[in-house]
Amino acid sequence: MEARFALPPGTGQTSAARVLDDWYVVCRSRDLGRAPRALTVVGLPLAFFRDGEGRPAALLDRCPHRNVPLSGGKVADGCLECPYHGWRFDGGGACRRVPGLAGEAESPARAARAFSCVESDGYVWVWPGEGPPDREPFRFPHLGEPGWAVAHDAFETVGTLHAVAENALDVPHTAFLHRGLFRGTGKTNELEVVVRRYGDRVEAEYIGEPAPRGLVGRLLAPGGGMVTHFDRFILPGIAQVEYRLSDRAHLVVSSALTPVDDQRTRLFAVVAFRLPLPAWLVRPILQPIARGIFKQDARILALQSATIERFGGEEFVSTELDALGAHIRSLLKQAERGGERKAGEAKERRFRMRA
Amino acid sequence: MEARFALPPGTGQTSAARVLDDWYVVCRSRDLGRAPRALTVVGLPLAFFRDGEGRPAALLDRCPHRNVPLSGGKVADGCLECPYHGWRFDGGGACRRVPGLAGEAESPARAARAFSCVESDGYVWVWPGEGPPDREPFRFPHLGEPGWAVAHDAFETVGTLHAVAENALDVPHTAFLHRGLFRGTGKTNELEVVVRRYGDRVEAEYIGEPAPRGLVGRLLAPGGGMVTHFDRFILPGIAQVEYRLSDRAHLVVSSALTPVDDQRTRLFAVVAFRLPLPAWLVRPILQPIARGIFKQDARILALQSATIERFGGEEFVSTELDALGAHIRSLLKQAERGGERKAGEAKERRFRMRA
Amino acid sequence: MEARFALPPGTGQTSAARVLDDWYVVCRSRDLGRAPRALTVVGLPLAFFRDGEGRPAALLDRCPHRNVPLSGGKVADGCLECPYHGWRFDGGGACRRVPGLAGEAESPARAARAFSCVESDGYVWVWPGEGPPDREPFRFPHLGEPGWAVAHDAFETVGTLHAVAENALDVPHTAFLHRGLFRGTGKTNELEVVVRRYGDRVEAEYIGEPAPRGLVGRLLAPGGGMVTHFDRFILPGIAQVEYRLSDRAHLVVSSALTPVDDQRTRLFAVVAFRLPLPAWLVRPILQPIARGIFKQDARILALQSATIERFGGEEFVSTELDALGAHIRSLLKQAERGGERKAGEAKERRFRMRA
Repeated sequence: MEARFALPPGTGQTSAARVLDDWYVVCRSRDLGRAPRALTVVGLPLAFFRDGEGRPAALLDRCPHRNVPLSGGKVADGCLECPYHGWRFDGGGACRRVPGLAGEAESPARAARAFSCVESDGYVWVWPGEGPPDREPFRFPHLGEPGWAVAHDAFETVGTLHAVAENALDVPHTAFLHRGLFRGTGKTNELEVVVRRYGDRVEAEYIGEPAPRGLVGRLLAPGGGMVTHFDRFILPGIAQVEYRLSDRAHLVVSSALTPVDDQRTRLFAVVAFRLPLPAWLVRPILQPIARGIFKQDARILALQSATIERFGGEEFVSTELDALGAHIRSLLKQAERGGERKAGEAKERRFRMRA
Repeated sequence: MEARFALPPGTGQTSAARVLDDWYVVCRSRDLGRAPRALTVVGLPLAFFRDGEGRPAALLDRCPHRNVPLSGGKVADGCLECPYHGWRFDGGGACRRVPGLAGEAESPARAARAFSCVESDGYVWVWPGEGPPDREPFRFPHLGEPGWAVAHDAFETVGTLHAVAENALDVPHTAFLHRGLFRGTGKTNELEVVVRRYGDRVEAEYIGEPAPRGLVGRLLAPGGGMVTHFDRFILPGIAQVEYRLSDRAHLVVSSALTPVDDQRTRLFAVVAFRLPLPAWLVRPILQPIARGIFKQDARILALQSATIERFGGEEFVSTELDALGAHIRSLLKQAERGGERKAGEAKERRFRMRA
Repeated sequence: MEARFALPPGTGQTSAARVLDDWYVVCRSRDLGRAPRALTVVGLPLAFFRDGEGRPAALLDRCPHRNVPLSGGKVADGCLECPYHGWRFDGGGACRRVPGLAGEAESPARAARAFSCVESDGYVWVWPGEGPPDREPFRFPHLGEPGWAVAHDAFETVGTLHAVAENALDVPHTAFLHRGLFRGTGKTNELEVVVRRYGDRVEAEYIGEPAPRGLVGRLLAPGGGMVTHFDRFILPGIAQVEYRLSDRAHLVVSSALTPVDDQRTRLFAVVAFRLPLPAWLVRPILQPIARGIFKQDARILALQSATIERFGGEEFVSTELDALGAHIRSLLKQAERGGERKAGEAKERRFRMRA
């Protein structure tokens, strides 16, 4: 049959990147209990469970015997048990039991593929590459420091990790898409932006930025003033926004992004804050605002994704205002090819924007 | 994975044709107001809106910046504004505003692709080809002529433009599928059919046809008698049925067909009539009959389309009764290749049918 | 666009086989009445109806004229009539009527493709190959024999014919998936399994098996004891389980499997039994148990099928406990290639299992 479109073939390009050799957040530690969980990470269907010692474990979610998903079974004796014939696998993937078999259960051919899995900062992390891991998971800043409080939230959206990271770190859309909620529509200033690109990250510093207006601004800086504002992307998927208003207020939102597959992304937001207001007051104000912003972003990201699919690929035109998008893309593509990530000297670029 | 069918591979043939260089109805003029509208025409996702002067405009429904559909935004200052970063585009596609940008907004790289769009006979029409248009849209006959009234209706159905046009102009199925409603089941006459093929159209004239029986017949010709009956297809998608009963009654149903994509078609029916009954009485009788007929046809067209998809292509066997189908197909395929459409001398063919 | 998976490409292998040259059950005889029925068999969309003599007939479910499914029409004058233009086809596929046509309706080009169709043992069977059939349909054992009763049921599930047959004839999963319902969880015995492979079938005999525990066991053999137990697969899709407890009880479940397409299978279960209990008591107990077992199996088969699809092919690891699966697969693949099916001498293999 012929294709369905009068459109010329699209670019076939997408910003989806498959960086397998790194750590991704799976879920909060408290959300992996007795029952196994099925979660797809970078396109890999995985079954997560806790072994006999309570350590998190991840197996490819397919029984080597008859290809039924192991996550449909249950945990028995610290092993994950297939619901079809009851084969059991330990956290390392070794087959420990084949009901009915007269001989030995364990055999290399019967092993399930296992992935490195750790707990850190209250989250379960997985390394979807072949391993073994050659680094530690990202550490969320300021957790447990005196004077600091923390809030957690999690979302899932249609969109590549790149699209979600660019969105999370993009300044111009906040004044437009989140108008009123996040930024005001009052008079504009011109501010200077410094972009610094490293081997494993890129950051933008905004100089001369007044305290954000709108609801979020009034919460962070009731008295106004100038802010220190950084946006950062750190491989493989940390999108970090840092706001500081001298000594009065400091806020770091670190979003750990986990690609479900090439088209869907999970976002685990860890908000560390030191504010003039008590944490018990900040949290219930922060959460509905964060969810409102996320809902607007998720809607746009889904529309973007559907349009890219429909047109057969991305075809972006950028301006200097798109400060980080191209850098995030090149970092991801380079990491996908297994390129080195030496921090090294930053390459710096400056431009002016109106905000 | 292997294919799912024991069926041998299908013909891969479909009657879908992509004639881009011509005018297609988008909607009635009154149905394009202040809000933009997303409509797909010949597979092109388009965003329609009215510019500062109220003229209809059509842009490819994808912001050049980050590929969000422009139709999700709103019209501001006579421009279509993207809902993500607020970029604005005028009716010609030029970028007029990039919020936050210190420099000039307009730049050829930032332009959205625009399509020619006009209003004619109370409809908005679009030319999905590169343009510029080298002809006017089709004019519906008898609009505004003394003694004539008009009724409008619109439908959408699964089916190629070819399948819908053939269905709209096919006589034998009316006696069968629309039995009772459209034609009776009484005794059959033999009548002569003359098919005349021109460079841009084909018509069938039915000679010796008694006034149609059934509900429609009783409405058009309460006294019976012989009718003058023409069925016409005019490129790129006008299916026209004309019935005349001497001086008593005259009816021309012009259906403007717009392919949504290769598998779906919109039908805008313009019914011009001069009847012994007053228009206020005809319209409420006509509409439910037309909708009843359309519903039966749409059901069959959807079944046909699904079967063709399932079998991997069309595989039609025709008889002489299929007077126009092959001509419509060759006209469309020739127009798709950009062939000339000189009216010229007609090629004529005659046959007899029982009706 | 790029693929959506980080997974390496799958094996591309599935156990789906397209054995066209054999008989498959379509439905029970009583379920093909006056109205035509649309049923897909081995990927072939077929329209079934009864001709003027009440004989079942099967046509390819596509009108040769304009490709509308014939099953959407009705039976008239012993012919199947297309709902679009009313063309009529007899049980052999010949076109018998073209409404409106001045000349003769019958013509080889206008014929619908017909398939051999018979009634046997109260079922309608079809031969989806080109034919003519060179054998009779499978006969269900013990039907109508003195002392024997019969129960019928039908199911449809996701899964290849191979996966469904292997599941139906697999012993180890019954102790696990159907724990309690079908087999108990008590102490295990070791028993001997003899596998006998013939040209057209394979059977497993279980020697030293105690009467099954659980609900089914208590029904079949209230007093326990040793059973004679055979599992058989007979081409193209009969899965047969036979239990005998000396003279007290004898049960043969013959499941005729019909592939809908490569991914779905229909199962027609014919349960012949001679038990110490009266048939009117057995049937209402048997049916809910059978349906409960089937529901559990269908859930697992659907999970298995989805996982195979997701991973791009089957990748099975087997043990000697998988007594019949590989044989069923090679029988099907050999029949698909049109290989001979001489019964001949059996090849025998023995192993021990714990049950």
